[in-house]
Amino acid sequence: MTDKNNLFVDLNAATMVESPEPYGQIKDAAIAVIDGVIKWVGPASDVPDTYTSLPRTSLGGRLVTPGLIDCHTHIVHGGDRAIEFEMRLNGASYEEVARAGGGIVSTVKATRAATEDELLVDALRRVDVMIAEGVTCIEIKSGYGLDMETELRMLRVARAIMANRAIIVKTTFLGAHATPAEYAGRDDAYIDDVCIPTLRAAHAEGLVDAVDGFCEGIAFHPAQIARVFDVARELGLPVKLHAEQLSNLGGAKLAASYGALSADHIEYLDEDGVKAMAEAGTVAVILPGAFYTLRETQAPPIDLLRKYNVPMALATDINPGTSPVNSMLLTLNMGCTLFRMTPEEALRGATQHAARALGLTNSGTIAAGMRADLAVWDIKHPAELAYRIGFNPLHSRIFGGILA
Amino acid sequence: MTDKNNLFVDLNAATMVESPEPYGQIKDAAIAVIDGVIKWVGPASDVPDTYTSLPRTSLGGRLVTPGLIDCHTHIVHGGDRAIEFEMRLNGASYEEVARAGGGIVSTVKATRAATEDELLVDALRRVDVMIAEGVTCIEIKSGYGLDMETELRMLRVARAIMANRAIIVKTTFLGAHATPAEYAGRDDAYIDDVCIPTLRAAHAEGLVDAVDGFCEGIAFHPAQIARVFDVARELGLPVKLHAEQLSNLGGAKLAASYGALSADHIEYLDEDGVKAMAEAGTVAVILPGAFYTLRETQAPPIDLLRKYNVPMALATDINPGTSPVNSMLLTLNMGCTLFRMTPEEALRGATQHAARALGLTNSGTIAAGMRADLAVWDIKHPAELAYRIGFNPLHSRIFGGILA
Ligand SMILES: [Zn+2]
Ligand SMILES: [Zn+2]
Repeated sequence: MTDKNNLFVDLNAATMVESPEPYGQIKDAAIAVIDGVIKWVGPASDVPDTYTSLPRTSLGGRLVTPGLIDCHTHIVHGGDRAIEFEMRLNGASYEEVARAGGGIVSTVKATRAATEDELLVDALRRVDVMIAEGVTCIEIKSGYGLDMETELRMLRVARAIMANRAIIVKTTFLGAHATPAEYAGRDDAYIDDVCIPTLRAAHAEGLVDAVDGFCEGIAFHPAQIARVFDVARELGLPVKLHAEQLSNLGGAKLAASYGALSADHIEYLDEDGVKAMAEAGTVAVILPGAFYTLRETQAPPIDLLRKYNVPMALATDINPGTSPVNSMLLTLNMGCTLFRMTPEEALRGATQHAARALGLTNSGTIAAGMRADLAVWDIKHPAELAYRIGFNPLHSRIFGGILA
Repeated sequence: MTDKNNLFVDLNAATMVESPEPYGQIKDAAIAVIDGVIKWVGPASDVPDTYTSLPRTSLGGRLVTPGLIDCHTHIVHGGDRAIEFEMRLNGASYEEVARAGGGIVSTVKATRAATEDELLVDALRRVDVMIAEGVTCIEIKSGYGLDMETELRMLRVARAIMANRAIIVKTTFLGAHATPAEYAGRDDAYIDDVCIPTLRAAHAEGLVDAVDGFCEGIAFHPAQIARVFDVARELGLPVKLHAEQLSNLGGAKLAASYGALSADHIEYLDEDGVKAMAEAGTVAVILPGAFYTLRETQAPPIDLLRKYNVPMALATDINPGTSPVNSMLLTLNMGCTLFRMTPEEALRGATQHAARALGLTNSGTIAAGMRADLAVWDIKHPAELAYRIGFNPLHSRIFGGILA
C-alpha cells in the first residue's frame, strides 16, 4: 500500500489519450498523483519540479493502463441458470425450460427471494473477480426485481458494493427490463403502475445514476420506453437503452433523441441509427459475451460505427441468462475475435469510451485531472490484453492513487 | 496441507464413473485415500471399518471432481503472437504478416532462441494458471523446435515442469508439426533427416510418452505421417494425430490404423473416420479454442461421435498462434456453447476421457485404485463448471492425496 500522493516511475503508460502514438503510449513515463488525482503524466525525464519531491513508487518497468471500466452489467442478481443451461444442451425445448421455471422468471424469483445481504455476498464474489482483472469502475443495473421493493433492494446492494470494495459503482434503473408474471399481458400497466413509480422512488432515495430499458419484440416497444425516458428527463437523469439486439425497432434512434449516454448491443442497428447516435454523441456499447452465448450470427455494424466516429465501448453484460461472462479481459478478446475490433479499439472500449458511456469525465484515460485509477500489467505490449484468452496478467491495481 | 492418508468427508462427489447417476454423483460422500491413492469412495454412511481411523478432512459440503486433465497443449514455447494478432486485426494480409516474421515461424524462432530456463519460467506462468483452475495433469507437445537441439530442449522443459509443480506431465513428440524454413520445399527430407532421428534421440533420453503429427494440406501428408508412426510403433510408443482440422485427408483413419490414443481437432471428420476411431478405441479430442480463434464454421461431428460411442475429450490446445487459451474451464464452456456438448460430456472430456486420451489408467475418475488427484469446487452442481465464463470457483486442489 502506498499513499494517495505519489510519483509513479519505471513504467510504460498506455494513456489512451488521443495522440499520434497508438494507445496514447508514453514509454518510460512518470505519473504524478496528489490526493488520488493525476496531476501530471509524461516522460520520466520531464517531471516538473513541483512533483519531484513526491514519494516515488517504482512499477518495475511494467505497462500501466487506465483501470478497466465495465459499463454494462447485471452483476447483482439472485441464483444462477446452470440447470437451465444444462437442460437446453440436453435438448429441452424453450417450453420445457419455461415449465421448469427457467428463463428470466427464475432470476426474478431468486432475486425477490434473496435478502440484501445475500445479494451483496453473491455479487461481491463476482465483483472480486473483476477487481482481480484490474477493473476500477462498474455499472450495475436493476431489473430482476420488477416490483418496487426488489428493484430498490438491488440498487441499494449496488451502492453497498462501492462501500465494501475499492471500486466506483454507477447505478442504472432498469425497471423496463421485462414484464413480471403478475402483469403478464399488461405491459402498459406494468410500466405505469410499477416501473415509473419505482423509478421515482429510487430517484428520491438517491439510488439512480441513469435509466435504462430493454427495447425489443420480446420486451418493450419504443412508445413504452419513451414513457419511462420522459420521466427520466423530468428527473434530470441520463438514459441508455438495450437496443437492436435481436431486431431493429429503432431503439437506438429513440435513445439518441433523448441524448442517451449509450445504446447497447445494437447488432441489428442500421446506418440511420448509427447517424442518429453520432449526432447525439451516444456511445455504442458492444456486448460480445451475449452474442457468443446466444450464438448470434449478425455482428454489430462496426464499420459503420467507425465511419461515423461513434465511440465504441465494450462490456461484459454479465448476467445469469444470456451472458454469464465475468471477465473484461475475455470480453476484449471477444470484441476482437468475434467482431474484428482492433486491440486498441477494444482497450479504448474498456477505458476511455466506457467512461463516456457512463457520463464520467474524470476517468478512462491517464491524464491530468483524472482519478488515479490504474491497472499495472506484467506485459510488454497493450495488444496482449486482448490477445490472451483466460490468462490474467494483472500485477497490481491503483485505486484513487493507492497501490494495492 | 494434509497427509497422503486421509478420509475426506463432507463432500458431494462427481466421480465421473459410469453410473445411473449423472456425473456418477454420490451425495454426502467420503473418499478414503492411502499413500495418495483412492482406496474407497461411497456414501459417508457406508465407510468400511478399515478406513474409519484415517485422519479426517472436511471439505465443507463442497463438490469434488477428478482433477482436470488438459490432454492437448503446446504450453512450452518461446515468445507470443500478440503483435501478429494486432496486425491482422488492423487489416494486414497474410503476406504482410509473414513478411513481418509472423506465423509459426516466429514461434519457432523465439523457441530456438530461448534457453531451457527461459522456456521453463515462461511455461510455468501458464501452468500455474491451469493449476489454479484445478488441473492436475497436462500433456505437453514439442514441435516449435523443428531441429534436434530445440525439440529435445522443449521436451526436457516439459519434464522439468513436473519436477517443479504438483502436476502430472505427459510428453508428446511433435516433430512433424511443420517444416522449418531451412527445409522449405523439402518436407520429406525434413521428416527423414531431422524429425525421425530426433524422435529416436528423444526416446533414447526417455523424453517421449507419445508421438503426434499435424496431418493437413498446410503441414504433412498421410504418407509422411505414416513414416513417423512406423518409427513410433518400432519404439513401442503410442501415437495421436492433429487430423481433419481444416480439411479431410483421412488422418483420423490413418491414426486409428495405428491404434492411436486420439485424433484431435477433427472438424472435417466423416462417418467412415468416426467408425474407424470407434473400432480402434481412439479418443476424439475436441479443441474449441482453436475453432473459436480461427473463426471456423464447421463444427466436429459430435452427433456421429455420440452415435458410435467414440469417447470425446476436451482440451485447450494452448498455443501462441491459433489458440492462446489458458483455461480448461473456458474450454468446457466453449465445448457446450460452440459445439452443443452437454455439461456432463464436457466434464467427462476434461477428466475420464482426457485420461484415456493420454493412455492413463489411474486417473480421470474418483474410484478405488485411482490417484487421489481431485478438484474441490465452491459450487452446488457440476453443470456450473461449464456454465460460467471467466469465473473460477476452485476452492482447493488435492494432488496425490495432499490438499493444498
Ligand atoms: Zn444487459
Ligand atoms: Zn495442437
